[in-house]
Amino acid sequence: MTRPYNFSAGPATMPEEVLRLAASEMLDWQGSGMSVMEMSHRGSEFISIYEKAESDFRDLLKIPKNFKILFMQGGGLGENAIVPLNLSKGGVIDFVLSGSWGQKSHKEAGKYAKTHIAASSEEAGFTSLPDPSTWQLSKDASYVHICTNETIHGVECHNLADLKALGSNAPLVIDFSSHVLSRSVDWSLIGLAFAGAQKNIGPAGLTLVVVREDLLDQAMTICPSAFNYKLVAAADSMYNTPPTYGIYIAGLTFEWIKRQEESGQSGVAAIELRNKAKAELFYNYLDSCDFYENRVNRLDRSRMNIPFFLKDESRNEAFLKGAKANGLLQLKGHKSVGGMRASIYNAMPIKGVQVLIEYMREFERSQT
Amino acid sequence: MTRPYNFSAGPATMPEEVLRLAASEMLDWQGSGMSVMEMSHRGSEFISIYEKAESDFRDLLKIPKNFKILFMQGGGLGENAIVPLNLSKGGVIDFVLSGSWGQKSHKEAGKYAKTHIAASSEEAGFTSLPDPSTWQLSKDASYVHICTNETIHGVECHNLADLKALGSNAPLVIDFSSHVLSRSVDWSLIGLAFAGAQKNIGPAGLTLVVVREDLLDQAMTICPSAFNYKLVAAADSMYNTPPTYGIYIAGLTFEWIKRQEESGQSGVAAIELRNKAKAELFYNYLDSCDFYENRVNRLDRSRMNIPFFLKDESRNEAFLKGAKANGLLQLKGHKSVGGMRASIYNAMPIKGVQVLIEYMREFERSQT
Repeated sequence: MTRPYNFSAGPATMPEEVLRLAASEMLDWQGSGMSVMEMSHRGSEFISIYEKAESDFRDLLKIPKNFKILFMQGGGLGENAIVPLNLSKGGVIDFVLSGSWGQKSHKEAGKYAKTHIAASSEEAGFTSLPDPSTWQLSKDASYVHICTNETIHGVECHNLADLKALGSNAPLVIDFSSHVLSRSVDWSLIGLAFAGAQKNIGPAGLTLVVVREDLLDQAMTICPSAFNYKLVAAADSMYNTPPTYGIYIAGLTFEWIKRQEESGQSGVAAIELRNKAKAELFYNYLDSCDFYENRVNRLDRSRMNIPFFLKDESRNEAFLKGAKANGLLQLKGHKSVGGMRASIYNAMPIKGVQVLIEYMREFERSQT
Repeated sequence: MTRPYNFSAGPATMPEEVLRLAASEMLDWQGSGMSVMEMSHRGSEFISIYEKAESDFRDLLKIPKNFKILFMQGGGLGENAIVPLNLSKGGVIDFVLSGSWGQKSHKEAGKYAKTHIAASSEEAGFTSLPDPSTWQLSKDASYVHICTNETIHGVECHNLADLKALGSNAPLVIDFSSHVLSRSVDWSLIGLAFAGAQKNIGPAGLTLVVVREDLLDQAMTICPSAFNYKLVAAADSMYNTPPTYGIYIAGLTFEWIKRQEESGQSGVAAIELRNKAKAELFYNYLDSCDFYENRVNRLDRSRMNIPFFLKDESRNEAFLKGAKANGLLQLKGHKSVGGMRASIYNAMPIKGVQVLIEYMREFERSQT
């Protein structure tokens, strides 16, 4: 069976090996006689799945011991409230905006704290990340929030800012939903990172939160217990019943990443090399032709989500129809940006990008 | 392959047909070339899955048109905060307590509203449901909360109280997590019902909320947007990315229930007949012997969760060991109650109860 290439921004394409293994274990996980869906979250079988997933995720991203990893529910939009409920102490939150997700976080946080836009590229249509030298950080912010990969606008932060060097003592909070596990992370610069699973990890409905231990104990009293980081951390993510099957699939994905090798590297380093190569291939093609274009500042271009436009937009519909007929799915851009978008997460093989470029060349020829 | 009988209180045993179908469609849902996990929640394929699941659930429980069905995240513990955030208006909430889950809901609601215990069977060790004639309902409560099946204590509400007849104009809120779809529901008496999926529906991480439309628009300003019923309802549960795979599995379970037939009945009516027969068989056995006992008031006994005790508790460990060796899993009682518990949800066939009783008889013989 040849599977189509699925460029959905999320929920998104998954490694075929992961899906095959999940299918084969659906009725009987490793001789237990149970599907993972049927296991008590407090039983030894599921606990072993959970512990392996937690430890593999920590290894893959080299997460230091003074950070807790929480497997939660609620997604990115949920975290837009859950983070300020846990970290803001009702104070000021600084936001650096480079796209829709940062905007959404900023709006929601206003329910729980004062918010301050330290920098924004909105006027330029969110085609860049504001340069740290221009950020107007508050004196005593509870934290600084950045969405480090804007799924909709295709803007990625390639070098985390050192807030201390910018004169701020606030912890940095990053929403890394759409590029988690696609690259290494410098945890020395971070207080908290969160990610919905449905891009690079697994099924929608699972949210990973990585939080420095010293930030755990400052939730507002109105924070729902199920979303209180301290309670969740103290119960090893079993304060309420976690999304067990999602954690299992996430664990299979982590094992898949660990097995990846590229140019002498393995794990996330291998994946990162591949992601660079995939993105370079696609951007080079876009920049080399007159028929298509990407409008994002070159230094801030995302390796995961690549919005592009047909210069003649009257051809959009024909482009999408032809793409689908060629097994290239979900290329329509987000309605707020228009045009096309190719999301090329970890699970998208370079072959998928090559086939897409081939189709785009042929489409151009057919139209000119 | 013979699968063991899994008496877990949740996540719990699932219909084998559902698991087989999910396994067979894991890599390619109905010729789409995608796993359901990989589908955009806004694509036509997933929308069709969602709409079928919503409509089947409505049909199965005969939910009137003036109720919205929301597919959310957060679980029962999440709803303990989400319900008062949406419905309490900061006023008074009445609670009727017959077990641990009611207690937890009561405690959490205190963060957002005044709470009043209208009745409680705590002094009697939560072995009954307080009789409605004894309830001390408030004059102007925002709502009255009852957990209608106490998973831990094995107490079930078999006849919903008519609050109007008791002199209250408040809407009734029920937590029906652990007996949803096991019996019919009289919606004329209900304002809101919620259920975590992991007992009778599907994987943990999906929460169903059924809410009367006139209750949608009264959330507190501090309610997180992702958990605001009005926003979720207006977006047909796509305000944030819903737990798509869980919704798919739930849909398969709904279709399985629709196919069930028993004594000329089908769907939930058939399932209810079977559940009655299973529970009667097991309670009759417990009541007929001196070796085991159930301590719940006969009129309030749960058809789903049956706690029982060996009169000589020094034999507990041997009992559990022998059960596991006989393919009878997860019979240990909740730590707060002790003893044993058999959860016999919809997906547990009567054969499972028969095999359990057979084992219990043999165990008794071996010990006496």
